Amino acid sequence: MEQGLEEKKVTSTEVYHGSFLRIYEDKVLLPNGKEASREYVKHPGATAVVPITSDGRIVLVRQYRYPVGKVTLEIPAGKLDAGEEPLICAKRELKEETGYVAESWTKLTSLLTTPGFTDEVIHLYKAESMRFDEACPDEDEFIHTCLCTPEEIRRMIADETIVDAKTLVALFMAGI
Amino acid sequence: MEQGLEEKKVTSTEVYHGSFLRIYEDKVLLPNGKEASREYVKHPGATAVVPITSDGRIVLVRQYRYPVGKVTLEIPAGKLDAGEEPLICAKRELKEETGYVAESWTKLTSLLTTPGFTDEVIHLYKAESMRFDEACPDEDEFIHTCLCTPEEIRRMIADETIVDAKTLVALFMAGI
Repeated sequence: MEQGLEEKKVTSTEVYHGSFLRIYEDKVLLPNGKEASREYVKHPGATAVVPITSDGRIVLVRQYRYPVGKVTLEIPAGKLDAGEEPLICAKRELKEETGYVAESWTKLTSLLTTPGFTDEVIHLYKAESMRFDEACPDEDEFIHTCLCTPEEIRRMIADETIVDAKTLVALFMAGI
Repeated sequence: MEQGLEEKKVTSTEVYHGSFLRIYEDKVLLPNGKEASREYVKHPGATAVVPITSDGRIVLVRQYRYPVGKVTLEIPAGKLDAGEEPLICAKRELKEETGYVAESWTKLTSLLTTPGFTDEVIHLYKAESMRFDEACPDEDEFIHTCLCTPEEIRRMIADETIVDAKTLVALFMAGI
């Protein structure tokens, strides 16, 4: 731990408990000895996958993201079940959302989505040597699959069609 | 709006109102006509900057991120004040956190940090033609500045020292 930056927990209070989010308000001691408060979201974590077909196209998903009020174009992703291994989750979500099963998996990184207010970590993978099996989205999950060439992806990054952070990081790290 | 994906708001209830976060629980109508609930965080939005010195080094900041319980290495960033122009905010945060003032500003993109549960947008910029003036962090804000070469940054991305999503996206888009 770096000297002179750490904040120490004094008290921790859960102020909201939703179906997957929990909000805490903590009192902390700052490096200068003063007290401050910190509000943040506890999140179960997630995985996301850059799925690359044998002809070099990338499988993306379109879905309505209610918090931002629009349809986004993202890599397949999903929340970790309690105690679930990230790679198991990534394989499950890829199959459910797109129908693809992959033989070859490469870990890219584990990113913090927005560490100023949440502990959410997303484990990112690249999936190759894929075959199409059968999509099986959760009931009441509405997702369209979209196969894009690297050129199409670079254009959609440039024109801000693709703006989801995990998607951008994973595409860059997969060399797309 | 893409056909067949949109969810329509039925009711919206604020269930938490913190110092900068607000949590909502909404009832929505799914594309199949069923009802579902959505919980999400309203966030004021933010800006972040890749500051590049005349000798090609990048100014990063180390700070303790309480929600994840560790010191992170990120590009300078900060929340928008109510009604604030993103570029004004970016200039303010760069000066406050690092002491640098830049002549040349390039917009990179506006990303969604994690659209599954928040509307947070971060506007990303590249700042060049910089001169050092004087850092003026907020009282009770503890930040160490760090000048890194592109080679050091690439190594710290590979070894997962740099894992903050906005930082990774902005560094990649700035061509680092």
